[in-house]
Order: sequence, then C-alpha cells, then structure tokens
Amino acid sequence: MSGRAGDPAELLALAEGGIAGNRRSLARLLSVVERGGPAARQLEALTYPRAGSTYTIGLTGAPGAGKSTLTGRIVAEALDRTGGPVAVLAVDPSSPLSGGAILGDRVRMQDHALDPNVFIRSMATRGHLGGLAAAVPDAVRLLDAAGWPLVLVETVGVGQVEVEVAGTCDTIVVVLNPGWGDAVQANKAGLLEVADVLVINKADRPGVRETRQDLVHMLQLTGVMEWTPPIVETVASTGQGLDELWEAIASHRDFLGSEGRLERRRQARMAEETERLCVDAFGHLASVALGRRDPRETPLGEPEAEKLRAAGRDLLERLARREIDPVAAADELAATLAGLIRFGQ
Amino acid sequence: MSGRAGDPAELLALAEGGIAGNRRSLARLLSVVERGGPAARQLEALTYPRAGSTYTIGLTGAPGAGKSTLTGRIVAEALDRTGGPVAVLAVDPSSPLSGGAILGDRVRMQDHALDPNVFIRSMATRGHLGGLAAAVPDAVRLLDAAGWPLVLVETVGVGQVEVEVAGTCDTIVVVLNPGWGDAVQANKAGLLEVADVLVINKADRPGVRETRQDLVHMLQLTGVMEWTPPIVETVASTGQGLDELWEAIASHRDFLGSEGRLERRRQARMAEETERLCVDAFGHLASVALGRRDPRETPLGEPEAEKLRAAGRDLLERLARREIDPVAAADELAATLAGLIRFGQ
Repeated sequence: MSGRAGDPAELLALAEGGIAGNRRSLARLLSVVERGGPAARQLEALTYPRAGSTYTIGLTGAPGAGKSTLTGRIVAEALDRTGGPVAVLAVDPSSPLSGGAILGDRVRMQDHALDPNVFIRSMATRGHLGGLAAAVPDAVRLLDAAGWPLVLVETVGVGQVEVEVAGTCDTIVVVLNPGWGDAVQANKAGLLEVADVLVINKADRPGVRETRQDLVHMLQLTGVMEWTPPIVETVASTGQGLDELWEAIASHRDFLGSEGRLERRRQARMAEETERLCVDAFGHLASVALGRRDPRETPLGEPEAEKLRAAGRDLLERLARREIDPVAAADELAATLAGLIRFGQ
Repeated sequence: MSGRAGDPAELLALAEGGIAGNRRSLARLLSVVERGGPAARQLEALTYPRAGSTYTIGLTGAPGAGKSTLTGRIVAEALDRTGGPVAVLAVDPSSPLSGGAILGDRVRMQDHALDPNVFIRSMATRGHLGGLAAAVPDAVRLLDAAGWPLVLVETVGVGQVEVEVAGTCDTIVVVLNPGWGDAVQANKAGLLEVADVLVINKADRPGVRETRQDLVHMLQLTGVMEWTPPIVETVASTGQGLDELWEAIASHRDFLGSEGRLERRRQARMAEETERLCVDAFGHLASVALGRRDPRETPLGEPEAEKLRAAGRDLLERLARREIDPVAAADELAATLAGLIRFGQ
C-alpha cells in the first residue's frame, strides 16, 4: 500500500457505497485524516454531509484491563448478531506509531483481520493542531461516509485525551478489573461520569463483589440519573458475560433512540467539538504572536506567521515601555488574530 | 470602612506617593480590583504606567506547611533589614471570603497588623473573567503604583491556580516539610519547576535529611540550570533559619538583577498574562455562543449576549442539518467572536 494519498475526492468515491474491495482506498484516506492539513480538511468537507448514520461504541479503561480482547469479542458478537460489517479504531495517544504498525501486537484481533466484514485500524498521534482528539471524530465520519454502520473506538488508557476521545462516541463502555487497579484511582470520578456501561472484566479474579459495591455506591452518590449505567461482569478471554454486555450496549442504544436523546447528545458533542477547534486554534495563534510557540505548529504560512510575530513583538515592546497594559494588549491581540483565523485553508 | 468604591482615580491619588495614612484608600482600591468589572479596568489603566519598581516574593506550598508563620517572619526580617515598608497579599482561591474576613485566623500576622510599615490583605475568589490568577497581578500593580516597594504574595495551597499566582512573582519560594506531605506528592515536579528558593520548614521534625536528598536528586534530574534553587531549612515558629532564607532570597534577587534577567523574566510573565487574558475571554465567548456557558459569567451586555447566542444557535442548527462541518463552524464562530472581543469596556 502506498503511503501517499491520491485525490481525496476520488479515493472517497472508491471507498464509499460498499464495504469489501475498497479497503485500500479507505486505509489511504485514514492516513490523510491522520496526517491532517489541507487534504484532511478537504476530505472532511466531503465526508461530513454524508455522515450521520453510523453508531459508535467507545471503550476506555486502564492499560491491561483487557480492552483489546474485549473489543475482539464485541466484534464477534456484532458479526453474529447483526451479520453486518464492523470497523475498529484502536487509538493510542501515547504512541508515535501509526497505521498498521501496532496491529501486530493485537493478537486477539487477528481472528478478524482477514474477515471482509471487519476493518481494523490503529491511530496514533497526529502531528498538528488538535491532535487525536480532533482526528478521531474525523476518522469516524470517514468510516461513516464510507458505509460502515458500526464503529468501535478503543483507547489504550484512562488519561484525559483517551476519555475525551471515547467521550465522542454514542455509547461509552468503561472497562475495569476487580480492585480497579492503580491506573484508574486518580480518575475514578471522571471515568464514571462518562460511562454508559460499566464492565468488570477478568471477573474470574477475586474482588468482583467489592468492586461492584464500590461502583454502585459511587453511582448513588452522583444522584438521580436519566440513565443508570448497568454493571456487567465479563471474562473476555473465555467470552463469559459477552451476551450480557451486548444486551447492555443495545439497551443503551435503545434508550438513546427514544425521545430524541441521540440527536441531542450528538449535537452537544458537535458544539463541544466546534468550541474546542475554535478556541485551540485561537490559543495557538496567540502563542505564536507572543513568541511562546513555534509557528510551524500551526497552519500559518511564512508571511502570515512573520506578520503575526511582528505584531506580537510590537505589543510586547509597548507593554515593556508601559505604554499599554496587558488588558489593552489582549484586546489588540484579539483584533489581530481575528483577521488570521481561517481553519479552512 | 465603606464597602463602596469612590472614583478610582481620586482614590489612587490618595493612595499613591506615601504609605501611612492612605491605607483606607488602598483597601478600597483593592476591593475594586477584587470585584473586577469596568471600575477595575479603569484602575488598571491608571496603575500600569506607574508600576514596575516593586519587588515581589511569592510563597507557595501545601496547607499546613507553615507558610503564614513563615510569611510573618519574612515580614519581620524585611522590616529589620530594609527598614522599609512591606505589603502582604494572602491569596486563597478556595475561599469565597474576601477582604479582611479571613485575616482573623492569621494569628502570627497580627504582630504586624498595627505597624504602619506593614499592609496585609487577603484576596479570595473574584467573581468574573480570569478569577484570582488575573486579579493578583492587578493587585500587585496597585500596591506598586501606591509606592509599596516589597510585596509578599502568599497562597494557601499547591493547586494549579496557586502555583500560577505565585509564578507571577519575581522570586518564588516553595515551602515544604520533612517528608513532603501527601498534598504535595501529586505536583512535586510542577512545584520544583517554579521554585527559586526551596524551604524545608518545620526542620526540627524527623526526615529533613531524606527530603533534602530527594530535592537535590530531583534538581539534578532537571539538568543544568542557570540558577539552582538553594535549599534552606527553617523552623518558622522559632525563627530558626530565617537569616539564611533572607540571604537566599537576596541572592536570587541579585542574580535576577544582573544581565537583564529580571526584565526578561517580567516580560515573559507579561506575555503569559496577555495570552491568558486573550484566550480565556475568547473561550468564554465561544462557550456562551454555543450555549455551554451562562452569558452572565462574561462582561457581555444583554443585547450582545443575545446576538451571540442567536449566531451560535444558527451555527448549531446548520451543523445538525449537516450544511456545514465543525471546522467551518469554528471558522464562522471565530469571525463572529472577533467582532465582540472588547476587554476594555
């Protein structure tokens, strides 16, 4: 497979409409998304109007909780129950690797690697603005536009970015182990807040009852909820509890499907995404202007970057001479930046 | 003392130029700063050109580390050594109290409460944009313009805001205890990064040697530094080690005084402050537009807020209809916001 992208529109035409046979185009388009920049932007403008029918399931939890094995089992369950195709995005914000590189480790997933109804892709850091938190929704929309009706998004850890990435999905599954594990302790509340389904995986180990009680107690503390996350016990290595997990996910999907909840949820996420894009870009430009960030980390061209830096230098000099104060400087800076914010280029 | 502010310019004229006798004006002006809004803005425009000669010392460390007692001792040391006046800002981001309210607890500081050469003021949360991290530099500039040559800024904890507040000072003193204490564990690296002087207070307790070794080791890991923070052992309750602490602070001040370091440091902080003001204001407006924040948390007037919300609603509707994508929406939002950013009003 060539690492170079062809014309995104042409590739998308190849990738969309069917599933089997277009995997190469799809893989190349996902590389375009991952790299970011103008081609990714062009692609997003093409996919967004075509997207909106895929259902997404996010899996998050501490490293070692058994998420990959569980993801493999959910894929098998989905194939059994729906007969339809399933795509998996395995997201690793801590890895500089991308594409198929880390797939070699994903032993359990190899059961599905040759199945034409399954598409598996790893995504690692994206070099530019917004990083993975911005790239994953783009990748999901691409799979959506290309006709994949179900996408699982699996993240490797429980850091802020991972939880944010999982948080863009329709149903969020949080995977724990008996005793929680150290990696989870610091972010217990954050994980519970996003969870739609709670899984105690490796439930053949001691401590399941205590962990369940702990979870029930924490859920009670959060007060009355429209949806109370069911707690499911699984042993991913043997497939135990997978039936129950699938039912829990399906129940949540049904719940979202009623009273316009899914639409409201997706719209709230869209508002979040828009705000993050807007504020991040603005903040990056402000840092460049004030000499606190390298212009190459932004989509600015040389002449624009130099103009911005010159405006920033002028501001800082006038601040130093006490001709203006920081609030007035912030005012001026905002006016300068406003003329430069053009994500679309 | 009246809680109401008079005309800031008039009050400032009363407060500046001398120290004793103008404390009421100064206290009222600090209340203006704390409340924020247009009067604070007007005051800042007046004080900024007059400021720049005060030296600031920041003290941060876990609650219970003995910072208040230590601050009292440093005040005494400063009075002894310089004969000159000293102002103290005691900053508590976690407290809704303000003004003199929490001063009653500050037993040790009462030694200085009636000294005309000492001005002590507590600052708690500020209700509006930017909060304490924005208000404290304003308060320091006010004291600066009013002629106080030395200001100690003491924060209650080691959270992000506290470290940020202390970080705006010229010399930053980080106060620890033998064994560090639990509250510090999570932010060890962050504290060490900002420290110009490290104090092991309550050094009459066991564990001093291990804590010092730990600190030396961590400092070595950070590599070659222009300035290596000296580690001073104190017992604030008895005054032990205060001589050495004063010398350490004076050495750092001398170090900054040479080769233009102080100016560079202050300019870097000013750039940081300007960026934060600019990006925070922008982010708050974006949240208001997208219906994710109450307009009353911003300085927007009713009609402007309504206009912004209408623009945001329109964007969200077009997003939902998939007429635009999030990047295009962020673009449009930025253009709308750009016309509304006016800190100065």
